[in-house]
Order: sequence, then structure tokens, then C-alpha cells
Amino acid sequence: VNFADRLIESIRTKGSPCVVGIDPDLSLFPSWCTGLPPEVAVLDFCRAVLDAVAPLVPIVKPQAAFFEQLGPNGFQVLDKVQAYAKELGLLVLLDAKRGDISSTAKAYAEAYISKDSYNFDAITLNPYLGPDSIEPFVEVAKASGAGLFVIAMTSNPGASVLQKSAMATGEPLFMRVAEMLLPMVDSLVGSAGYSSLGVVAGATYPSEAAELRQKLPHSFFLVPGMGAQGGDASSLREFFKPDGLGAIVSNSRGITYCAASASSPKETSVAVSEATKKFVEIVAAR
Amino acid sequence: VNFADRLIESIRTKGSPCVVGIDPDLSLFPSWCTGLPPEVAVLDFCRAVLDAVAPLVPIVKPQAAFFEQLGPNGFQVLDKVQAYAKELGLLVLLDAKRGDISSTAKAYAEAYISKDSYNFDAITLNPYLGPDSIEPFVEVAKASGAGLFVIAMTSNPGASVLQKSAMATGEPLFMRVAEMLLPMVDSLVGSAGYSSLGVVAGATYPSEAAELRQKLPHSFFLVPGMGAQGGDASSLREFFKPDGLGAIVSNSRGITYCAASASSPKETSVAVSEATKKFVEIVAAR
Repeated sequence: VNFADRLIESIRTKGSPCVVGIDPDLSLFPSWCTGLPPEVAVLDFCRAVLDAVAPLVPIVKPQAAFFEQLGPNGFQVLDKVQAYAKELGLLVLLDAKRGDISSTAKAYAEAYISKDSYNFDAITLNPYLGPDSIEPFVEVAKASGAGLFVIAMTSNPGASVLQKSAMATGEPLFMRVAEMLLPMVDSLVGSAGYSSLGVVAGATYPSEAAELRQKLPHSFFLVPGMGAQGGDASSLREFFKPDGLGAIVSNSRGITYCAASASSPKETSVAVSEATKKFVEIVAAR
Repeated sequence: VNFADRLIESIRTKGSPCVVGIDPDLSLFPSWCTGLPPEVAVLDFCRAVLDAVAPLVPIVKPQAAFFEQLGPNGFQVLDKVQAYAKELGLLVLLDAKRGDISSTAKAYAEAYISKDSYNFDAITLNPYLGPDSIEPFVEVAKASGAGLFVIAMTSNPGASVLQKSAMATGEPLFMRVAEMLLPMVDSLVGSAGYSSLGVVAGATYPSEAAELRQKLPHSFFLVPGMGAQGGDASSLREFFKPDGLGAIVSNSRGITYCAASASSPKETSVAVSEATKKFVEIVAAR
């Protein structure tokens, strides 16, 4: 089934368009993880977070970098985290920001979003190498029903240096990226009218989001940058469509590292559950 | 020791500025790999390639995607391939094209180029997220002596859609990337006058390489796109400096898949050795 259709169903079931990011950064882990082998600590911590968020949000977003940092066994842990999230009925979006060409892009696509391998529900991608770096993912996504979120405009301060720079034709670079994606977006539209090819659009740039929304009416926006990075709930309106769909709003550290003093997995789950409920309310009040 | 200094020493020892790319694509493996478990086939194939190229080139470039495609144990194979390459005296550049911000960029940097983890000699990066996506790698590289190659201008046809597009200020996007990198390039210059921060510059665009060379006189260029993608040896001159340094020229499939009919690791090594020697001659005749 088309990713956008599955996402919409899950947003309706959970009653929220929120994403919880899973960035297992050992230096921020609660006290009960101290002394555990890193791979065990990460798996147990992620399970405590997933237990808490599964009833509240449709989708989680593990960050590949923190699993890669665990060394050669890191992706075994990632695979277990994914399996546990799916058991709990969550969609799983791998934040990997991959970008390469031809046979290499195909290898990444087959690794992460084909039915034969990890089979993540969706993945984030980087557009800098051009349309031929995205097309192999579109082909695999058509077969597997996976989703793609291509970085258009990130929430970091440095995003302005390239992404927001004006092109000779007047529009900023991120709008050229949107233009480049348009035919691929249209080729992945599901039965609800939304495409499985979405874009990353940082919460810190609402006026730019309005431009993106005009150009890509059928795309879901993955919206990072709320909280720590300064995004504001009232400005979230620009990212959604009038039907209340079209965006998923992400929070990682604000939720998962809310309880450094937790002394058990259960205490972590309780704190993460409270923080997630608050985040869901903020996003609902947009 | 600074990566650029180590690279120059190795280029002089081997007498060539060539890079052999290691893209272990199971669908292209020779007949002797048939029937082996994928992880065994990849490791044995990579060892046969490394045995052949070690006396001839200073550096090899494993492509992360093909190891990721092996599934959760893929990076164990990558780690063994790196260890074997280093035993043979080769420098190892991980082609991973990572790009993310703040704590995530730091996690990638610590995963791949710090002394405490995989400890690759160098890694490729994607600049689209801005300077704050490169800076964490520069910090780790200063401590570990690793090298960085940031994508400026790739060799694929789609590179023109974004990378070669003109900015409002007149220059193409890849030159804006070079401008953004300049202070970081200068912060990593070694004792031979070259920086550990280089750029990827596709062989298919020699006139653009001349522009890049003017902007970044202290950077090594990693030059893919010879052979299959249509790059021409005579145009390689634009990528090098008058001292004969400043570029490393990469070939992957043209070398490693030259002998589909090889019936033993030894036959693969012999064929790869011949193909590497030919490539070294072509690059020397520039």
C-alpha cells in the first residue's frame, strides 16, 4: 500500500501528526543505562521510548548516525529497534539522508526500503546530486510502497548559506529542488491524493514553507526544528493543508531526553509519555 | 599526521595518484563467488581486489552503500575490508556522502573518522545542509588526522540540475559550495601545503574543474567519472596542479568488474592488476 495512504490512516488512528525522533546518544542517556554495554543500553532505552510513544504518535524516526556510531554491530541494534516499533504498530522512518547516483542509489534503496531487506516504511534523502540520485528510490518505492522525504529546507542556521540562496532565475535553491522533484512527486500519489514523496521543511522557516506548499500541494512535509531549534507552534499552520493533513511534525531530544534522572526503563517511559502528550497538544493547538 | 601529507607520501611511494573504488555489487561478481554466502563472497572478492591493487595505488575507496545492502552484518564486512586494506599499506577513503547537522554530524564523524571507532583515513561528505554540517567533521579531522572530500560537482548527467545552476550572483552552485568551504580548507593545511579538506570534482566537467582549482588552490580533488561515465584523460590536466599533485583519480567498476569469467580469487587478482596498471598508465599520460 502507498506510504502516504498508510501514513494518513495512522495519523487518523492516533489522532496526531507527530513524529518522535530516536537519536540514541549515549552521552545523554539516563542513569539506569550506566554500566550497560552500549548496544544493550541503546536497545533498552529505545524500547522504553517506543513503549511510551506507540499509543500517541503514528510514526517514529530513528537517526541512522547514532546506530552507525555503535560500530560494526550498530545496524543489528537498529534492526531490532525497527522490529520492536513495528510490533507496536508504529511506522518507521529512517533518517539517513542518503544521496548518491545510479547503482549506488539503487543499493541504498534496496538496502533500506525494499521488501527484501530492512524494509523501513520511509527514508530521508539528500537532493544535491540531482534527479538521478532520487529516481532509483522512486522505482523501489513504487514496488514496496515505501515513502521518501527529500531535504528541501532544513531548520539549522547554516541552511541559509546554500538552501535559501537565490538562483539566477530568482527563486531560492530549495524551490529549485521542489521543482526538480515535482514529476516524481506526481508519480507516487496514493488514493487519498497525497504523494509518498515528501520533503523536509524546517519549522524555523514558515514563510518559505508557504512557498513550498504552493509548489508541492500533494507532498507531506516532514517538519523538524520545533522546540530546541526555535520553531513556533503558531507558525506550523503554513506547513499543513486546509484538510489538516500534509505535514508530520518531529521532535527528538525534547522528548527522549526529558528525564536524565530516570532510574529505570519504566521511569523513562513515564517521562517520555508525558513529554509526548505535551508535544501532541502543542501541535494540535496550531 | 595530516591526511594530505600522508596522501602525498603514499602517492610518491606508489608513483600514481589513482584510487580504486570498491563497490561490491553481488550481481556483478565473478563465477567463483557463486554459491558463497553474500558476506563471504564480498569479503573474499574485496581481498582479491586489494591484493591486486595494493602495490599499484595509494588509496582505495569502499562504497558504504554496498556494505549497507548486505544487511545488519554489512559493516562487520566493511570493517574487515578496511583492516585488510590497511595491512597492505593502503589508505582507505569511505565513500559515504554523509550530511547532517550538529550532534548528528558529530556522531557520523566520531563513527567513521575518529581514532576510537572505524578510523577511516578519509570520508566523502554532502554539503547541502550548509557549513554547520561540515564543521563537526573538521573538528574531528583535526584531532584524528583524517581527510574529508566534500561533493562539489559530481560526474553524473543530473549534476547540472542543481550543482551547475547559476546563482543570482552569477557563479554556479558548486562554486558557492567551494566558497563556503574555503575557511575550513585553510584550517586543515598540512606541511606540504595541501589541505585535508578536498572536494569531489567529476572528470566529465574539466572547464568547471579549472574554476574550482582557482578557488581552492590548496585542496585535493577526488575525480570520479573516468571511463564508463565518459571522462577523458587529456582533460585531467585541469584537475591537477603544476607540481603534479592536487588530484586523485578514481575508477571503480572499470577495474573491479573487468573479469566476470574469473574462476578463482587468483584469476580475479590477475585481471584486476592488469586493469589497474592500464588505468595508472592512462592517468600518467594526461
